[in-house]
Amino acid sequence: MRREITGFSNPTVKWLRSLRDKKHRRREGRFLAEGLRLLTDAYESGRVPEMLVMADTRDAHPLIASLEEAVTAEGGDVVVTTPDILAKITGKDNPQAVAGVFAEFDTSLAAVRRGAAPIWLVAQALRDPGNLGTMLRTGDAVGAGGLILVDDCADPFSAEAVRASMGAVFTQGIAQARWPDFLDWLRGGEGQLVAASLRDAVPYRGAPYAAPCFVLVGNESRGLPEDYEAACDLRVTMPMRGRADSLNAAVAAAVLSYEVLAALEV
Amino acid sequence: MRREITGFSNPTVKWLRSLRDKKHRRREGRFLAEGLRLLTDAYESGRVPEMLVMADTRDAHPLIASLEEAVTAEGGDVVVTTPDILAKITGKDNPQAVAGVFAEFDTSLAAVRRGAAPIWLVAQALRDPGNLGTMLRTGDAVGAGGLILVDDCADPFSAEAVRASMGAVFTQGIAQARWPDFLDWLRGGEGQLVAASLRDAVPYRGAPYAAPCFVLVGNESRGLPEDYEAACDLRVTMPMRGRADSLNAAVAAAVLSYEVLAALEV
Repeated sequence: MRREITGFSNPTVKWLRSLRDKKHRRREGRFLAEGLRLLTDAYESGRVPEMLVMADTRDAHPLIASLEEAVTAEGGDVVVTTPDILAKITGKDNPQAVAGVFAEFDTSLAAVRRGAAPIWLVAQALRDPGNLGTMLRTGDAVGAGGLILVDDCADPFSAEAVRASMGAVFTQGIAQARWPDFLDWLRGGEGQLVAASLRDAVPYRGAPYAAPCFVLVGNESRGLPEDYEAACDLRVTMPMRGRADSLNAAVAAAVLSYEVLAALEV
Repeated sequence: MRREITGFSNPTVKWLRSLRDKKHRRREGRFLAEGLRLLTDAYESGRVPEMLVMADTRDAHPLIASLEEAVTAEGGDVVVTTPDILAKITGKDNPQAVAGVFAEFDTSLAAVRRGAAPIWLVAQALRDPGNLGTMLRTGDAVGAGGLILVDDCADPFSAEAVRASMGAVFTQGIAQARWPDFLDWLRGGEGQLVAASLRDAVPYRGAPYAAPCFVLVGNESRGLPEDYEAACDLRVTMPMRGRADSLNAAVAAAVLSYEVLAALEV
């Protein structure tokens, strides 16, 4: 259904705005993705928004038109509104011309098919949504099956994570679990758990990686708890030539993942 | 000199606040670094702030005391103020208990001693200060000499870049230049310019890297201009197994830099 909204106090506007908040996203099971590029990525990955919100600016884009068609065909809503209201919804001064509401995915471990990919990324207590989105993007690049979020991580469906993922939020699997549940699940099947570590570690190059390889990185400031590291099958260390003893979490995940990718392909 | 400031309208408070703005930083040649960890990193790298700003909270930290001593010994200012005023200065609701004002460094290419390190990072039109800080941090880790910023990049002395660098802003060299000037400078001595590229590129693993190796990444959305890529000595490509055709810029720089590091050490 297509409709126009011109009032700031319209309930749909309020509902859309509320999706910027994690609590509301969780309750509604919905999240917002902004921008034509992201929505096009989603569409090409087979994800059509339940609701498409467009600014009523003059110059229509052919990609927006085809998105609108797809949404309508699937019985979704198309909302046309003013740039000002769209700015209020997205919380940005210069909003993209279009945004979409998507249903959150099943993020239980039960949905993870570990045999479907040689690499999986695992983040523990990762707090920065930008890092989380970047890990999703890296996962897409290395052909990972998805990202497993252990303990209290940033929300993968936040605007910042979705944006940083560059569309990978729609293609990578996402699961969330507490550490004991994750470990139980992991040990219930094949899977090598690898952590970047300074303790009792072997050089990351030439380490005996095996598929499916689960690449684990820890919290931005505290790293991984010692007992989590101890539970890993393999601890690897990357050269640190300077005075710092760690890399950015998303960077560490990427350097390690590319090494695993190369090792598994040889 | 040690002094107390209790008024929001104090000129020093205004001056400190103004350092959050790039234009003012440039004019004053000063920047602000927040947090005990960052200031300690700076101190250990031989950088003592010209001015130390501390909140007058009760529990003094021994590291803050030794910082204060160092600043006083070098003739710098110590400002004690309220947490509220410190929050106003840093623009954060929960400010760190301490901040420092540092003189910006010489960022001319003339200050770059290319023979001093086997790897240098080069960013072109990089817009995200977090990415820039992350590149500095990665540079420290791979033993790079520093980061060269080509064309209009984010400000390496912004609070966000300084924070993301995790102290590397104090240990890595930083230079800024327009592309033609950078290329002239580069060709005036030894140096291999390497870009991550999709055009006419060889696999990044096993590519013939040579020191000093300048690892170049481009703008977050547009990548490198075609003629910039053409001017490189080596174009390398990283596997892209998913649907995206690029990595986050700081991630690409890191994966490539670690490969260069490994190649140069063999």
